[in-house]
Amino acid sequence: MNYANKRFAVTGGAGFIGSHMVDALAARGARVTVVDDFSTGFQEFVSKHENVTLVRGDLLDPEVPKRAFEGHDFVFHFAANADVRDGLKHPRKDVEQNTLVTHNVLEACRAHGIKDFGFSSTGALYGDTAVLPTPEDAPFPIQTSLYGASKVACEGLITAYAFGYGFRVYIYRFVSMLGPRYTHGHVADFYRQLRAHPDHLDVLGDGNQQKSYLHVTDCISAMLTVVEKSKMPNDVHIYNLGHTEWISVKESVGVICKELGISPKLNFAGGDRGWVGDAPKILLDTKRLRALGWTDTRSVADSVRDTLRFLKENAYALR
Amino acid sequence: MNYANKRFAVTGGAGFIGSHMVDALAARGARVTVVDDFSTGFQEFVSKHENVTLVRGDLLDPEVPKRAFEGHDFVFHFAANADVRDGLKHPRKDVEQNTLVTHNVLEACRAHGIKDFGFSSTGALYGDTAVLPTPEDAPFPIQTSLYGASKVACEGLITAYAFGYGFRVYIYRFVSMLGPRYTHGHVADFYRQLRAHPDHLDVLGDGNQQKSYLHVTDCISAMLTVVEKSKMPNDVHIYNLGHTEWISVKESVGVICKELGISPKLNFAGGDRGWVGDAPKILLDTKRLRALGWTDTRSVADSVRDTLRFLKENAYALR
Repeated sequence: MNYANKRFAVTGGAGFIGSHMVDALAARGARVTVVDDFSTGFQEFVSKHENVTLVRGDLLDPEVPKRAFEGHDFVFHFAANADVRDGLKHPRKDVEQNTLVTHNVLEACRAHGIKDFGFSSTGALYGDTAVLPTPEDAPFPIQTSLYGASKVACEGLITAYAFGYGFRVYIYRFVSMLGPRYTHGHVADFYRQLRAHPDHLDVLGDGNQQKSYLHVTDCISAMLTVVEKSKMPNDVHIYNLGHTEWISVKESVGVICKELGISPKLNFAGGDRGWVGDAPKILLDTKRLRALGWTDTRSVADSVRDTLRFLKENAYALR
Repeated sequence: MNYANKRFAVTGGAGFIGSHMVDALAARGARVTVVDDFSTGFQEFVSKHENVTLVRGDLLDPEVPKRAFEGHDFVFHFAANADVRDGLKHPRKDVEQNTLVTHNVLEACRAHGIKDFGFSSTGALYGDTAVLPTPEDAPFPIQTSLYGASKVACEGLITAYAFGYGFRVYIYRFVSMLGPRYTHGHVADFYRQLRAHPDHLDVLGDGNQQKSYLHVTDCISAMLTVVEKSKMPNDVHIYNLGHTEWISVKESVGVICKELGISPKLNFAGGDRGWVGDAPKILLDTKRLRALGWTDTRSVADSVRDTLRFLKENAYALR
């Protein structure tokens, strides 16, 4: 792909993964429009590259993407409510911020004849699958969280647009990502706690939850590899993104404490999962992605350390 | 189940399948509230049984189900946009009428502490599956229609409510149903045409599309069998509803023409499917349902004839 010829719009381009995508596209010579409402994004994350333009706006208003996307060739849609844990406290949020916003974004693409569409989906939509590692064509999953339910709703809309309107769609089912600019999840939670009280740490679940994590730079290289190389029927490109390794919460705590040079007392809340709808074990089968020649370059422990270092050096990110 | 002790609300209770459910529940002694906006329902279908009350209203307004469900024990949610074929003409309709309405209905249940929730889903959400007959745990399907996409979105919401809020949910993945009060689909289309011009019939696709159909009385008996007998983990009861037989469009045309005593010239539009997103072959695996002791009682050809007879005797239904 000749990036220098193309105009990309990146929704959520001031967020964790979106901002890394903006950097990668601009570095390849593309012109990029960031669309973000800064509800969870950071001004500090927005690229200052001369090819990058910023549009502020809430995508729940259909006119916002319609105005922002004019003249673009490709949309990467990252903007979403990514707060999995508190979904049950505000059950309309995932419906609005994920399902409805994605529909608005698709409609804006259709209005402007934009056919290339990349979407950040999630391994959470495999629910409590019994198949580990989980491939893309795992048995039809039962959704256990409102977040997973909203992402499966988005995927359905996106592939229906591929079949119905000729979109070329790139759907990435992410494990949790780690690395610079990651301001949520267990590393940030633990670091916040340990800054306040280095002598003890409260851990959700029993600490044996096993998760796979990928470094955000490996995530971006995987996403662009798919765009450049994937061949799939009907231009529906669905790929798991993840690491072959996984790490238990306890092991991750060990990496963090070693890096901080502390030995807190660990208080486990108990139970096999962190919260309702949390999958106690996540490991995605990434053979489809690796067959394109992509490989991860960082260990999970290295990604945990890299996230922690970013947080230590950028106090604003924990505000 | 002691139906006489229970109050049911049936959304879409003036529609094809919903109205049959209302009749069946009232006949078992239950008190039933029909909630319908008559956008596709018929006043003529609404039960005149003394146990049945009618509430008119559009469920896209969250206050409508909230008012209608007060004091109820069980909600059967049938109300939906069931116009699969024209989804691409108005891509917001499935999002609103199916996904958002279902969320409003779930929230109204939650507001009133109603935990029992039945939902009319569809075999269309298996998309272009390669597995025939298709079981409930078929490989994770790719949605090919906006209708299928909206129903998979609804299922996700419903099961997330089961995990998050303790709902007992009954999800029925229907093949197309036939029988009295069916006013859409190929039987009604063909009958409308043949009434206007008995000498020729335009048929979508090449006539070789194979579909399975179930009689609506068998559908209702299956739904109630599931409520009465199903045992599934987490009270998430997902069942395919269908016939073991299937019938080609050509064979169905034969049944209809014989019943009408005519021999029209057949004009096939060609192609392997009726419209974009139409699955050319639908046959659901119903072993899970049949293991509960349920069986179908009518052949597919018999169901086609029964639908046709209803349409011949009730001209209002083709208005």
